[in-house]
Amino acid sequence: MKFEIKERDAAGRICKLTTKHGTITTPNLMPVINPNKMLISPKDMKRLFGTEIVITNSYIIKKDENLRNKALKNGVHKLIDFDGLVMTDSGTFQSYVYKKEDIDPIDIVEFQRDIGSDIGTILDVFGLPDQNKKEAEEGVNETIKRAKTSIKIKKDMNLACTVQGSIYQELRKKCAKQLSEIDSDFFPIGGVVPLMENQRYIDLIKIIISSKKGLDPSKPVHLFGAGHPLIFPLAVALGCDFFDSSAYAKYANDDRMIFPWGTEKLNDLIELPCSCPVCIKYNASELRKLEKKQRILEIAKHNLYVSFSEIKKIRNAISQGNLWELVERKASFNPYLIEAMNVLKLNDNKIWLEKYEPISKPKALFYTGKNTIHRPIIYRLHNRLLSRYNSRYKDTVVFHEKNKPYSRCFSKEIKKILSKNNEINIIVDSSLGPIPIELDEMYPIGQSVFPCLLDRETEEEITEFYDVFTKNKNLISWIGYKTLKEIKLTKKSKKEKDLDLIKICAISDMQFGKNASKGLFNGKIKIVKSKNTEKIRNIYCDGEHILSMRASDGLFTLKIEGGRRLHKFFKSPNLRVVIKEDAIPFIKDGKSVFAKFVKDCDKNLRPYDECLIVDKKDNLLAVGRCILNYDEMLSFNFGVAVKTREHI
Amino acid sequence: MKFEIKERDAAGRICKLTTKHGTITTPNLMPVINPNKMLISPKDMKRLFGTEIVITNSYIIKKDENLRNKALKNGVHKLIDFDGLVMTDSGTFQSYVYKKEDIDPIDIVEFQRDIGSDIGTILDVFGLPDQNKKEAEEGVNETIKRAKTSIKIKKDMNLACTVQGSIYQELRKKCAKQLSEIDSDFFPIGGVVPLMENQRYIDLIKIIISSKKGLDPSKPVHLFGAGHPLIFPLAVALGCDFFDSSAYAKYANDDRMIFPWGTEKLNDLIELPCSCPVCIKYNASELRKLEKKQRILEIAKHNLYVSFSEIKKIRNAISQGNLWELVERKASFNPYLIEAMNVLKLNDNKIWLEKYEPISKPKALFYTGKNTIHRPIIYRLHNRLLSRYNSRYKDTVVFHEKNKPYSRCFSKEIKKILSKNNEINIIVDSSLGPIPIELDEMYPIGQSVFPCLLDRETEEEITEFYDVFTKNKNLISWIGYKTLKEIKLTKKSKKEKDLDLIKICAISDMQFGKNASKGLFNGKIKIVKSKNTEKIRNIYCDGEHILSMRASDGLFTLKIEGGRRLHKFFKSPNLRVVIKEDAIPFIKDGKSVFAKFVKDCDKNLRPYDECLIVDKKDNLLAVGRCILNYDEMLSFNFGVAVKTREHI
Repeated sequence: MKFEIKERDAAGRICKLTTKHGTITTPNLMPVINPNKMLISPKDMKRLFGTEIVITNSYIIKKDENLRNKALKNGVHKLIDFDGLVMTDSGTFQSYVYKKEDIDPIDIVEFQRDIGSDIGTILDVFGLPDQNKKEAEEGVNETIKRAKTSIKIKKDMNLACTVQGSIYQELRKKCAKQLSEIDSDFFPIGGVVPLMENQRYIDLIKIIISSKKGLDPSKPVHLFGAGHPLIFPLAVALGCDFFDSSAYAKYANDDRMIFPWGTEKLNDLIELPCSCPVCIKYNASELRKLEKKQRILEIAKHNLYVSFSEIKKIRNAISQGNLWELVERKASFNPYLIEAMNVLKLNDNKIWLEKYEPISKPKALFYTGKNTIHRPIIYRLHNRLLSRYNSRYKDTVVFHEKNKPYSRCFSKEIKKILSKNNEINIIVDSSLGPIPIELDEMYPIGQSVFPCLLDRETEEEITEFYDVFTKNKNLISWIGYKTLKEIKLTKKSKKEKDLDLIKICAISDMQFGKNASKGLFNGKIKIVKSKNTEKIRNIYCDGEHILSMRASDGLFTLKIEGGRRLHKFFKSPNLRVVIKEDAIPFIKDGKSVFAKFVKDCDKNLRPYDECLIVDKKDNLLAVGRCILNYDEMLSFNFGVAVKTREHI
Repeated sequence: MKFEIKERDAAGRICKLTTKHGTITTPNLMPVINPNKMLISPKDMKRLFGTEIVITNSYIIKKDENLRNKALKNGVHKLIDFDGLVMTDSGTFQSYVYKKEDIDPIDIVEFQRDIGSDIGTILDVFGLPDQNKKEAEEGVNETIKRAKTSIKIKKDMNLACTVQGSIYQELRKKCAKQLSEIDSDFFPIGGVVPLMENQRYIDLIKIIISSKKGLDPSKPVHLFGAGHPLIFPLAVALGCDFFDSSAYAKYANDDRMIFPWGTEKLNDLIELPCSCPVCIKYNASELRKLEKKQRILEIAKHNLYVSFSEIKKIRNAISQGNLWELVERKASFNPYLIEAMNVLKLNDNKIWLEKYEPISKPKALFYTGKNTIHRPIIYRLHNRLLSRYNSRYKDTVVFHEKNKPYSRCFSKEIKKILSKNNEINIIVDSSLGPIPIELDEMYPIGQSVFPCLLDRETEEEITEFYDVFTKNKNLISWIGYKTLKEIKLTKKSKKEKDLDLIKICAISDMQFGKNASKGLFNGKIKIVKSKNTEKIRNIYCDGEHILSMRASDGLFTLKIEGGRRLHKFFKSPNLRVVIKEDAIPFIKDGKSVFAKFVKDCDKNLRPYDECLIVDKKDNLLAVGRCILNYDEMLSFNFGVAVKTREHI
């Protein structure tokens, strides 16, 4: 199985997964196929909804002599007449729901292997949410034991090893870790159906995060049994790649229709609030009047149209960098989900999420409500303002937020202040918290849209950060020219303070690390601006081009000469990606760094961070842009880890 | 034109509108048809999207000799080949955008009449948002003058008189009032396009509300130029019935696709996040690769599929009683719309909205975030708790919210408390504020879903109300048996306090008015409960059936014997709907009260309130359930005002 990251946002990702039955895109949804009763055939699903992968139950196939023999003879793909990917389940859920105890954990894996499943599943022990910790631990131990046995007999089948551990986060993490160590190919997160049925989203989120913390990040993760699109965006944002849906059929049997915001009974609808082909073909009363079999089929189709379009919505959000917006907006559909969003605000989870959060995104950051201020990218901004930003002076003038970019909006005032006092900080009291004026064009500061009137939680959050950031400062509120009189005269030289220089120093410190500017700008600096937009474009030091600035996000791209300076200034492992010996010739040829050639890397590198590509002796080979973070670089076997920008 | 309310929620409504070209349902959307360039023919629109009404421009038709002659000869319906409703615009917007000054206000109305428009529009003066008040007032005066002239020549055409007044609320209201007085048939709210283009939703909402406050509530209202579904739910909740969309074509020309959450450029999409037939037929890259003409057509279709499905979503929400949920969730898509929601919290607007808010709804109330607590139904609950609820005693035990219904959840504790002290209030400190325990099954208290952890604004709001409601009370927090010891013994009689009696008294006071219970329960009371659910079902007084309780919302339906008691107890006009002489025989026959037969009514009656139907001498004729509120009863000419339940 080949699995590689193509695009990413939050802790979510768009990946390509390849088995011998082809390559598919994740996040993806596997409709559940009941081999005894196919409401819609997999072939039709492919035609109608673009279905690329389905899941069917090996236990059901094995139990039925006719199905068993057919599957053993022709393979599971022929059995269900589908040429895409087929995952098989082992009967764990059946043994939980129907208390079946006639399944042998070895037999069922061998059987899945023998019928040619693309991804076969171990017979894990279903962990119930009301188990005590000891019971849950026994289940986990048995699951791990079975996984270890199963891995030996799987041959070339990909093996899915399900993470269990009930609602105990430590157990989940432990189970995930141990399953990762035995080189499983695919990780379902199991035992979540009873939680979803009872809308226990707080536990669900905790389980996903704790499992993910233990899992090998280079393997696909499947939220087993989650078929309702309400939960898809959040699960993807936390790193789930697959969902399966039996809901499409189960709900249809019950005249229940899936919508992006929840489920509605057909009888409660006076109109079909959807534009899918089914809801265009019929109105509500026509659909109600269809004879039962036909009605179930049409509702099932509707349910799949909606579910797949939700998957597409998520992929778009990842590619546009607004997955958090989608998650936050989706939460408003369900009071329990709204409440569960608070789990993301726990410090441990913020720390974990920040590691996966890209440095910048294609689209602006939009405020959706009280959860926005807790996004990992704002958490990072605040952290870096405290740890990386050089807040030099005691005297600090504070502007009240107005139009963006701030430095243009307040340009006259800034000039007046600096003409009087050279040793003064200027900050804007913004919706993101206090922002040094020179960072005003950097993502997400310049690229965020907040209302003027904020919610109370955001106000408290930014006020708290304001207090921390401005501690020990002498704060002077800007209330017009009156303020100017209050500012002490400290200007000594007649030379104008170079605002652009302040700007590039501040941004490079924030982006590359504390004092990076000292390492970068250690000679004669020349700043070249765009003639049209007057924005900074290129920076030269002693005649050498060291940095360029992207107009879209106000961040630097690193030139090789800039890389040399940072390499000299920051000791290893700072900013480094260390590559294996055999990859050196490729890098020297300008090729990108593939994940399997990464030997080590700086733990502080984040997706889309600029980095230094070095050999094991710390010789600089090239500069580039990280696609993966530390954990991913060291575990992925496929795909690009760093896009090389310039090489020596 | 016939216009009558069928269902309602918030200040929104589902109505039937009838002209000689048929009956259609509102809220509805009119695609704009350019008679010179039909991207999709109205006939195809009817087939594909179920389009029932379109709007076209009489100015464009009149300017073109060929179109003009055809229209005058065969009528506008033949001209555009559509047998549904056709509204025509007068060229006001063209005169604003292209500064055309060649339109005569009389000629253009006569022309619309002569080509057989179902709804013709006056040539109003477009009010710009940056006008000063004097300029705006001149425009309003000229608009009113033209409306008065136009009404004389309209003959049997329905005349749309557009409300103008720039951003000045008083002017809007005045304009609306004066246009209503001259018996216009249809009210566009004009001059809003520049506001929407600049996302000035605060002004937009203020304009809609101030216009609605002045308008005759029995006439259809059209938010002129609003074609993006983002704003539809809010506009409907404020009482708009029609939208028109030229956006579907304008955006398509520009490769922009309309989605429920906003607009996306086709080039920004890696997948089409939609399940409409267009987005099922093509994937993003296929759609991009279509030749331009075909691509514009397909995107235009997509835009209309989405827009119409949003209208259907709104109609469902009205019929389920969750339009506010839809409005609040929709707001999260746009930071400026989030901010604009604050306008609804102004006291004047709460008062206005409360008048139109139904007493109860088919579905539970769901929390979506900080706006929920400001909903009119909660505002009403708080008001009635202060003005109608009889909070007898000083000593008050406070329970912390747990499971619903509270009285069952705390039944043991309540028994213990009352066995010790008969003169004590018991309240629950809930997400809706302090709730007397006996009201726990009444809508929306028993039928609301809030998370445990609330947002700060809600917390502040309910804390503030808590303080007002419990002022001068001696508050005792329930912290278990310890509390019991603190409660003074005041019990004198040995008779158990009848909790059911307390319950029916409290609910009837809340529902019918302060002290209503004294008028209703003035004899020997018998309470009959459901054997299955143990819920109160019927109440008898001295052997007469006076009330029933609906299981779904815990509110009373009034029997004629209950009506007699309330009629005797409360003086006119309380709870009364006074009907005209000629309707008496119908009421005596058990027929419903049609709006045109209402002579007068209690200003405090709300939609779905129980009421007393009386003649002009205040003789009780029947009891029933209001469909309309005071303002509506007195202005509607069509439809049911009160559904008669029982008559004398």
